[in-house]
Amino acid sequence: MSRWQPDARGRLERAATVAEIAKRAGLTERTFFRHFADKREVLFWGAGELQDFMVSALASAPDSAAPMEAVAAAIQGAAVLLAQRPIEYARQRRFIIAANVELQERELIKLASLAAALADTLRRRGVNEPAASLAAEAGIAVFKIAFEAWTSETSQRDFPELIRESFDELRAVTAGTEVC
Amino acid sequence: MSRWQPDARGRLERAATVAEIAKRAGLTERTFFRHFADKREVLFWGAGELQDFMVSALASAPDSAAPMEAVAAAIQGAAVLLAQRPIEYARQRRFIIAANVELQERELIKLASLAAALADTLRRRGVNEPAASLAAEAGIAVFKIAFEAWTSETSQRDFPELIRESFDELRAVTAGTEVC
Repeated sequence: MSRWQPDARGRLERAATVAEIAKRAGLTERTFFRHFADKREVLFWGAGELQDFMVSALASAPDSAAPMEAVAAAIQGAAVLLAQRPIEYARQRRFIIAANVELQERELIKLASLAAALADTLRRRGVNEPAASLAAEAGIAVFKIAFEAWTSETSQRDFPELIRESFDELRAVTAGTEVC
Repeated sequence: MSRWQPDARGRLERAATVAEIAKRAGLTERTFFRHFADKREVLFWGAGELQDFMVSALASAPDSAAPMEAVAAAIQGAAVLLAQRPIEYARQRRFIIAANVELQERELIKLASLAAALADTLRRRGVNEPAASLAAEAGIAVFKIAFEAWTSETSQRDFPELIRESFDELRAVTAGTEVC
């Protein structure tokens, strides 16, 4: 993330004032604070919906789907959903989070919660441990890495396509495992 | 983690007072605070060393080792190292962290930093993205899940053996991936 560092503070201040966020959203600051406890909260608006979407998609996968197949389909669906919003939104969100350690911690806890929810859904589908947690954590790792590639400053790639490629790459890299 | 919740606060207070931690370590409270800025810091003592160990092990893997193979060997080495300490230390640490959201966030950021350091080391070994980040994140997921299995209240398993099994399971679960 070092390429975000130069003038991170200044860029963050320009990007993340409540006035600015409210203006972009077409709200007064007063209305903004009626909806969000603080300005950090707005960055994570949608995380609950994303989790609900992934969990529903996973729960409704065909019984015949292998655990990782079902996880990949759910994450692929979420990528299609996220790619409907302007990429600039995702880029700005990523930039603001990258510039602030507290926000990074919050982001990590949201991703961990997402992985826990997916693992829980897999267990309800009859998948045992550690397969359930491994499939969920590996899926979220793919999501995180593909999201970073999608929102990089130079990327012009399609998010669902990046997800697909990352799952293929995970399979290739994992097939090479030989624990001594 | 719900099995930790009943009386979590009471158990945490009994387990995590500075006086208690200092006593277990054979230190006075004054000496304790000379070494650690606050009582939370003590729980993460060793995280830097663990990261240094994993990075060195990964960097010194044979050139012929596939990325995931090199990551697995480094994590396996760290498990052997950690398993030398009494398991009660790891169990108590896990319990204290599980009872406190702030500590969970700090734990997640340490794991993310570990994954980033491993990915960086793989890139220096000539591994491209996203393979480097995927191998690193998947390896840390295995480490986290095997650590949880090792420190569960009922476990009597060997940590390095759990790591080995989890890498095998990751390979099996990932081989089933078919992204639609």
